[in-house]
Amino acid sequence: MADNKFVYFFGNEETEGKNSMKDLLGGKGANLAEMANLGIPVPPGFTITTEVCLLYLDKGVYPTEVIDQINNAILKLEKVTGKKFGNNENPLLISVRSGARVSMPGMMDTVLNLGLNDDTVAGLAKKTGNERFAYDSYRRFLTMFGDVVLDIQHHKFESALSEKKQKLGVVLDTDLNADALKGLVETFKSIIRDETGKDFPQDPRKQLQMAIDAVFNSWNNQRAITYRRLNNIPGEWGTAVNVQSMVYGNMGETSGTGVAFTRDPATGDKRFFGEYLMNAQGEDVVAGIRTPESIVTLENTMPESYAKLEEIYKKLENHFSDMQDIEFTIEEGKLFMLQTRAGKRTAAAALKIAVDMVNEGLIDKRTALMRVSPEQIDRLLHPTIDSQAEYEVLATGLPASPGAAVGKVVFTAEHAEEMAKNNEKVILVRTETSPEDIGGMDAAQGILTVRGGMTSHAAVVARGMGKPCVAGCGAVSIDMSSLTFTVCDVTVNEGDYVTLDGTTGALIIGEVDLITPTVSGELDVLLSWADEVREMGVRTNADTPHDAQVAREFGAEGIGLCRTEHMFFGEDRIPAVRDMILAEDTNVRKAALDKLLPMQKEDFMGIFKVMEGYPVTIRLLDPPLHEFLPKHEELADKLRAVEAAGGSSKEMEDIKRLMERVDSMVETNPMLGHRGCRLGITYPEIYKMQVQAIIEAACELKSSGMDIVPEIMVPLISHVNELSSAKKDLVEVAESVMAKNGVKLDYLVGTMIELPRAALTADQIAKEAEFFSFGTNDLTQTTFGFSRDDAGKFLPFYIENSILTNDPFAVLDQEGVGELVRIGIEKGRSTRPDLKIGICGEHGGEPSSVKFGYNIGLNYVSCSPFRVPIARLSAAQAVIEKQDNS
Amino acid sequence: MADNKFVYFFGNEETEGKNSMKDLLGGKGANLAEMANLGIPVPPGFTITTEVCLLYLDKGVYPTEVIDQINNAILKLEKVTGKKFGNNENPLLISVRSGARVSMPGMMDTVLNLGLNDDTVAGLAKKTGNERFAYDSYRRFLTMFGDVVLDIQHHKFESALSEKKQKLGVVLDTDLNADALKGLVETFKSIIRDETGKDFPQDPRKQLQMAIDAVFNSWNNQRAITYRRLNNIPGEWGTAVNVQSMVYGNMGETSGTGVAFTRDPATGDKRFFGEYLMNAQGEDVVAGIRTPESIVTLENTMPESYAKLEEIYKKLENHFSDMQDIEFTIEEGKLFMLQTRAGKRTAAAALKIAVDMVNEGLIDKRTALMRVSPEQIDRLLHPTIDSQAEYEVLATGLPASPGAAVGKVVFTAEHAEEMAKNNEKVILVRTETSPEDIGGMDAAQGILTVRGGMTSHAAVVARGMGKPCVAGCGAVSIDMSSLTFTVCDVTVNEGDYVTLDGTTGALIIGEVDLITPTVSGELDVLLSWADEVREMGVRTNADTPHDAQVAREFGAEGIGLCRTEHMFFGEDRIPAVRDMILAEDTNVRKAALDKLLPMQKEDFMGIFKVMEGYPVTIRLLDPPLHEFLPKHEELADKLRAVEAAGGSSKEMEDIKRLMERVDSMVETNPMLGHRGCRLGITYPEIYKMQVQAIIEAACELKSSGMDIVPEIMVPLISHVNELSSAKKDLVEVAESVMAKNGVKLDYLVGTMIELPRAALTADQIAKEAEFFSFGTNDLTQTTFGFSRDDAGKFLPFYIENSILTNDPFAVLDQEGVGELVRIGIEKGRSTRPDLKIGICGEHGGEPSSVKFGYNIGLNYVSCSPFRVPIARLSAAQAVIEKQDNS
Repeated sequence: MADNKFVYFFGNEETEGKNSMKDLLGGKGANLAEMANLGIPVPPGFTITTEVCLLYLDKGVYPTEVIDQINNAILKLEKVTGKKFGNNENPLLISVRSGARVSMPGMMDTVLNLGLNDDTVAGLAKKTGNERFAYDSYRRFLTMFGDVVLDIQHHKFESALSEKKQKLGVVLDTDLNADALKGLVETFKSIIRDETGKDFPQDPRKQLQMAIDAVFNSWNNQRAITYRRLNNIPGEWGTAVNVQSMVYGNMGETSGTGVAFTRDPATGDKRFFGEYLMNAQGEDVVAGIRTPESIVTLENTMPESYAKLEEIYKKLENHFSDMQDIEFTIEEGKLFMLQTRAGKRTAAAALKIAVDMVNEGLIDKRTALMRVSPEQIDRLLHPTIDSQAEYEVLATGLPASPGAAVGKVVFTAEHAEEMAKNNEKVILVRTETSPEDIGGMDAAQGILTVRGGMTSHAAVVARGMGKPCVAGCGAVSIDMSSLTFTVCDVTVNEGDYVTLDGTTGALIIGEVDLITPTVSGELDVLLSWADEVREMGVRTNADTPHDAQVAREFGAEGIGLCRTEHMFFGEDRIPAVRDMILAEDTNVRKAALDKLLPMQKEDFMGIFKVMEGYPVTIRLLDPPLHEFLPKHEELADKLRAVEAAGGSSKEMEDIKRLMERVDSMVETNPMLGHRGCRLGITYPEIYKMQVQAIIEAACELKSSGMDIVPEIMVPLISHVNELSSAKKDLVEVAESVMAKNGVKLDYLVGTMIELPRAALTADQIAKEAEFFSFGTNDLTQTTFGFSRDDAGKFLPFYIENSILTNDPFAVLDQEGVGELVRIGIEKGRSTRPDLKIGICGEHGGEPSSVKFGYNIGLNYVSCSPFRVPIARLSAAQAVIEKQDNS
Repeated sequence: MADNKFVYFFGNEETEGKNSMKDLLGGKGANLAEMANLGIPVPPGFTITTEVCLLYLDKGVYPTEVIDQINNAILKLEKVTGKKFGNNENPLLISVRSGARVSMPGMMDTVLNLGLNDDTVAGLAKKTGNERFAYDSYRRFLTMFGDVVLDIQHHKFESALSEKKQKLGVVLDTDLNADALKGLVETFKSIIRDETGKDFPQDPRKQLQMAIDAVFNSWNNQRAITYRRLNNIPGEWGTAVNVQSMVYGNMGETSGTGVAFTRDPATGDKRFFGEYLMNAQGEDVVAGIRTPESIVTLENTMPESYAKLEEIYKKLENHFSDMQDIEFTIEEGKLFMLQTRAGKRTAAAALKIAVDMVNEGLIDKRTALMRVSPEQIDRLLHPTIDSQAEYEVLATGLPASPGAAVGKVVFTAEHAEEMAKNNEKVILVRTETSPEDIGGMDAAQGILTVRGGMTSHAAVVARGMGKPCVAGCGAVSIDMSSLTFTVCDVTVNEGDYVTLDGTTGALIIGEVDLITPTVSGELDVLLSWADEVREMGVRTNADTPHDAQVAREFGAEGIGLCRTEHMFFGEDRIPAVRDMILAEDTNVRKAALDKLLPMQKEDFMGIFKVMEGYPVTIRLLDPPLHEFLPKHEELADKLRAVEAAGGSSKEMEDIKRLMERVDSMVETNPMLGHRGCRLGITYPEIYKMQVQAIIEAACELKSSGMDIVPEIMVPLISHVNELSSAKKDLVEVAESVMAKNGVKLDYLVGTMIELPRAALTADQIAKEAEFFSFGTNDLTQTTFGFSRDDAGKFLPFYIENSILTNDPFAVLDQEGVGELVRIGIEKGRSTRPDLKIGICGEHGGEPSSVKFGYNIGLNYVSCSPFRVPIARLSAAQAVIEKQDNS
């Protein structure tokens, strides 16, 4: 609590804060101060710090110094503006806004015109000579205060407004005259009395206190908590409150308000981009109720203001070295900046802006690498509509967030979440979205709204999430009672498939083929910078030459996990695999394996060729053998069918024999059963065949001059003796194949660390293993005791109820599973200091897990081909973050 | 390698070793030296140290000092005995014996008469004036050397001997004259030539070297390795070799040899107990080929020798303060001691001797506690034949190892092992047993032999294993070709049930009821001493008042694990349990739970009453709910039956509905599924009902003046948030029940630590948990990734092939699972220093696991009622061992 200073003034020369004080003043407050410092016109005001938020939420009261400092700030504000708070003659009106360290939808946003009451409204009318304006401001204030401070449903005010307009036969709010607005003010006050049981507070100081309380309390409302959870924002940050003198965009035709971006937030193009409304307040733009004008037309409407705005936005972008999202108000021709902040942008824009700014000399490569999130790279690799596909566009809205999505139509966020839980892909269709819809938006493949512009809630949030979004698609008419929407005479039911193209704004009936993009252009440039910085290798998990090829194109430097069981499932192999399993003795089993040998060898040759010069880690057979056999039920059905058809007794005997074998192999917990090295140790001929295939393939290619680096990985080791036992056989086979071929290969034998015991005894295992690959999928299963196949019964509940922050199968659990990985690395290197260590679970392509992996000393991560670019960037960011923190 | 001294002389005043040098000289060598030091007549000789064994096994050659020191020892031996090694006139003959730190069947045992060859045999004949004796000694030497040094099957020599006797029409070996024996010597030499392709080595030095090599090599033969594995003997110990000048028990009617125990090894009674044979060598007694005389008759046969023997055995028992197992030889009236060692004894004898010796002032209580192994306590609690049972004894043999056993007859060790793997109980029936049979003996419930005495291989090994054994049951005649045995006209087939009573020697056809003994007499005394010493509590795992009562009688100090699911399986409860599971909503589920509430309450009252004053840890419901429902197959059968019987459609609908529910609840890996606290968190009403029942029961009893200490345990926690979430509800219910009853109870809320993640994050969990109980069964499953239900497919293979030393579900894996327990304790106490920590898996009653638990700081162990005495003793020994090691 530095100096017990809780309130920071801004505006003119009195400004006390600055940009670097975001933790204390919040993003909005710090940037208002910074703008004031830069000499940019901002309406004066003050910021109550995030410290106050935490104190208030902790104790429920404010330290007396806070109250004193607020009162002093109000005095100063009165002095600077020449107005008086609560004064009937020349009332000071203020806005109250929340402002956390990062922008956070879901919290209380804004109350405007605070300070108005039945007396001051008359003063305002008199002072401005505009009674209509005064009462319009008052009714707006009542609505906002009622909604966000008193928690009265917004539509109650909206309905009263609509009724009034209908009664008077007018269409636009602006058509209501002063008397109508006066009547509305009385109606609104009675709504407040009815809903809260109390009169609307006339005392401006009380209004202010209630608004401040509401901002602080909104930090802990459900929507804010959900948003923080989804975005990993600590609850301990708290929010600041910004109190600012009002300026008015709704004082007539020389007034207006707008929001803009210094570059195009969708494409990243270097052009001024935004919207404004004349004679309106800011909320009118954001809410998407009236359709705003493009910012460039302001040059014609108000050339002076536009010129000033242009000068300011350039100054701001230069000053912050980043694309800015700005809000402004023009009050009777005078421009005021209400906000500047780093602008949200699409993944494509983030990438383009980062690369462009390096080229423009605004930032360095290192900064550029931190400007694009790995999640954005993920989005860039999202599908688009196949250019070959034929389809008809039903309607077109705004291209609010790029990328294409296919799914079933749903009309509520709840329904979207429910269906997504059942692995259904859905498109959320709403008239407009609100913070309550966040869960449903997260669950959906894409979002379609009827109303709202490019900066509407749906558009902003969807871009943030990297979801395709088509906004303001006015041709769509939703009927919630029948759960349908219509476009002209076409009716679409909930559950029908639609396709959205957020890049063009197209809405299409049915499922259209999508294609996934490749790495090129700016992405290639950025990733090459990432490669310069990162210290950790990035490999891929690939089982086929095709996947290996795709991964190479994405920049994979080898294979970290090549599963061999997928090869066993091939249609041409499964008969031999079944013969092998059903073999009654070792010789019959060997004969069946001999049939598989040439096929496996061919598989490996294909992969080795693609990965020439790079290591290929091949995991020996892992799943339990019964996975290769038909299920009991399947066989029982077949038996009944054969019986009904009068099949031969030989035929039926064969099925029965197979059934018996299948039954004898049933396991209670196959995940913890007879699989992995347990299989290889009890049936050594299987691993011997695989190693023979691997080494023969490698020898053959090496003979033809290729550089082949095979790494043989034994899965599911729990005790070092398992590895020594398996390794003895494998090395014997490998040496004999090499001797036979007269080829000397450098190959490694290592193991998956995917059981807690393996991590805990890694010092012993490392004596035998030449490399470790952490199989964090299985390790997560055993560390938590969660079966991934069964966790659906409780894991979603756990996440909804904040028992777990993340799905540990998606985001590595650093405290538990990560601790085992850390122990495993430390112990492993204690007996083999040069041990090569990687990770090959799903987590290998998840940014936070990749960074964790770097910090605990992994040599490489391995992930699915499409996540390779994500891993490359994450690995680079990990290095930069570590340097920044040290 | 202290002083590079590898060879230690013993006999007369030249003795260099002593009793405390067992690690270096082996048990036999150290004790021979000690006897010499005590002035007891031992044939002089020398011991080659265990260090030499390890050097030899490592390098395959001996350091030159070893050869020199052996040659010097031979010189000294020649000097002391006045004989010369390899000399034709007065040859020095020696025995060569193995001798590890502990006695170890399975290793090379003994070669006698070494130094004989075609020349020295003549010298021996001339010197002793007894040609028959000389050639008898030579043929014995050839047999032993051929068998144990050259690895020729023993029966080849036996067959030649039988042939010879048959040809000459004599019955006993002693009836063969010198010429016959000369002929046999030639035959034996040609057997050796045929089998090895080489002549029998005539050079005594070469014979000695080969015998020493053979002893050392036998340390690593398969039988020795198996024995070490079964008995946890480290391979790094090695064996010593004892070379000793020969004395002869076969020099006529004033010569003899015998083995004896200073107390009765079966009962512990204080009486001299043993057997001897006149005109025989030691091997004749042990092999059980001729039936020996009871030692007490020696007083009549050779009163002077007996008196001397009596003096010596008393001196030895006093000196070693323990019951001794001695071997002696009388050579022409002169007594020599060949060995003394702590005698193997039955559990009952161990107990009686330990308690008696404390009473006699020979040892203190602490020593007594170390003299009885927890495994022996286990045996004492082994079944005996129910005194009420009616049965007929088919035949009676020697009561070689006490206790009763029931099982199916098997005739080979291999078959015994196979059947035991399928959980069949078997009785191994053999003519006589040999070290090859050890695996089968271990697998069997009991052992029956046709030949051999109380000190035969079968008897000694069975007592060591604590298995019932009836030996020398000559009425039994085995036919291996038909796999049957007959007693008179009764034929018993392999697979038929028999019952053995090793305490009486009875063999009974069929299955007889057995009963389990209780703690009384000496056991009670010893365990009360254990209670004085131990620092760790011993609780029991019990789910019923009956089990709790049994455990109290065995000395349990509370319940460490009361599983509540067993209560749900009661016939009167299962309908309500199923209603609860099938409930479509929370209210219906609550109604079903309300029916269960009074039953659960009654269960807890019964247990609380028995355990008054002691803590009772109750685990809330753990298994997945589908365990309480019928299986799909069962329902499908029922459906078909109802259909066939023309049942109503309502009836069929009900079954179908149930089937659907059952199907929807199927889990791929139930062990890692929707169970434990996951159940309690997703259906909070279940745990609430249970806690209500627990607290209501406790309040009611407390109101009536009883001291009730309930501990509520939440199972399967992986993350602290699970515990906080469950605990919040539980405490609320508990507080409300107490308020309603106006009773203030001291109760605790704690958790099972049974998942790796719980141990790894125990610091966080301990903030919420008031106690920890390590559920090492589940923890072993997840740490190894072994499903106990499925491990049968590979775990036996692992143990047979020494991949694992022990079944980790029986003996706690200290390196892996134990490491997690250690981490859990350390982290748990880091945030809650007074955290009460116990263990409640199967390991809670396994001696090595109990000791490990003490050393890492557990407050208590909890085990099944019958293992409570074992845990009490183990816990006391843990304290003594720790003191001894510090």
